Amino acid sequence: MISMVLFGFGNVGQQLYKVFKKKKVNILQVYSPSMTPIEKKGTKFINDLAQVEAADIYIVAINDDAINNFSSSLPFENALVVHTSGSASIESIVSKNRRGVFYPLQTFSKDQKVKWKDIPICIEAENEADLSILKELGNLLSRKVVVINSEQRKQLHLGAVWVNNFSNHLFHLADDFLGDVNLDFNLLKPLILETAKKIKNISPAEAQTGPARRNDQETITNHLALLKNPNHKELYDLLTKSIREKFK
Amino acid sequence: MISMVLFGFGNVGQQLYKVFKKKKVNILQVYSPSMTPIEKKGTKFINDLAQVEAADIYIVAINDDAINNFSSSLPFENALVVHTSGSASIESIVSKNRRGVFYPLQTFSKDQKVKWKDIPICIEAENEADLSILKELGNLLSRKVVVINSEQRKQLHLGAVWVNNFSNHLFHLADDFLGDVNLDFNLLKPLILETAKKIKNISPAEAQTGPARRNDQETITNHLALLKNPNHKELYDLLTKSIREKFK
Repeated sequence: MISMVLFGFGNVGQQLYKVFKKKKVNILQVYSPSMTPIEKKGTKFINDLAQVEAADIYIVAINDDAINNFSSSLPFENALVVHTSGSASIESIVSKNRRGVFYPLQTFSKDQKVKWKDIPICIEAENEADLSILKELGNLLSRKVVVINSEQRKQLHLGAVWVNNFSNHLFHLADDFLGDVNLDFNLLKPLILETAKKIKNISPAEAQTGPARRNDQETITNHLALLKNPNHKELYDLLTKSIREKFK
Repeated sequence: MISMVLFGFGNVGQQLYKVFKKKKVNILQVYSPSMTPIEKKGTKFINDLAQVEAADIYIVAINDDAINNFSSSLPFENALVVHTSGSASIESIVSKNRRGVFYPLQTFSKDQKVKWKDIPICIEAENEADLSILKELGNLLSRKVVVINSEQRKQLHLGAVWVNNFSNHLFHLADDFLGDVNLDFNLLKPLILETAKKIKNISPAEAQTGPARRNDQETITNHLALLKNPNHKELYDLLTKSIREKFK
């Protein structure tokens, strides 16, 4: 069985810990600077990098912008070190180790129940042997393990920002608008869920509906009049134009 | 049992027909100008308004901008006539009949399996007796029947445009971006579904993550550089600023 050390114990680190434990992966250690040292079910929780043991793979699940410095502070060389970031390049890990990426394409919260088998795991490595280890590890968690290079991963991460971060922000705006007129945001939740489910079987282009799609200028004008914040007006206008551009 | 005539047989009309039939509502007739006349399971499909029979309620499930003219062409008076639109006012039905609204807050496709019990039904009427009929009818379909006036309904519909039409457009854009670099849009689908599910238990404000939320300027700059279309750059920029505004 693959032996592993996990660096970082935030949302991604904790979810990886949970699922790898479940899959009986040999997690030797979990490192976090703020960790209280303890041993639990065969895994040592440590806060001192000097104590890091030899392992088949080191997973760095920390903030994107900290990966580079952290990887240079690792007190070992020629080991397989991978990060879990969608946007950081494989080169953000310093080259004294064998580098790789193990990016689960999902949004994680600490207490969320994650259905790992559906989550795409995007892997990248500098040689075939390391790629095999990542594949083996990925296959333990998911039915969808894909080899993707850093350039493609950046595009994928950009796509994830549009569909996750930006969509969620639209939910946030709608929540505010409804709150302003004492309407319950819960009324929109079935629609939000159906919007996501709809594209399981048809493309987003086919699923597109609404006043912009129909070029229903009267409703568009009415909606713009309802919006008070000029930034929201601008955003509504730009999204409407962007839809029009696709269907003109 | 309530007797009903249904005008219009598009997405909404067909879904209402299916579910009211299932609930044993007495649908006397379904009218559509292009309908081939036939009788099926006790319902007459007609294409001639002169043949419309007396019923407890007339449901007008047609395009928003056609409601007014259509309602004035109805060859009867003082009957309960309701439309199913989110954005049209109750006054878009001409006043020779008793007016109302029966708006199921959901996006419908023809072949989709609709879970009616979770769909909010927003009702409005000019008097209590008619409101009771709409409530009774709504309760047959859904656990969530809410009385909402035309002003509130407009806000709700605007919210629906943000969370459904605009989110779906973001999916559409991501689909395009990934296609441009030969990546499979299916990779993003589990993330899209989780984005919708996440706000079941936490607010969109709490669920917000991503470079804009973290004010991660490096990633934002990289993303803007990846976008080729100036409209998409502008949209990315505006959405990012809108998120920053919420969390500054």
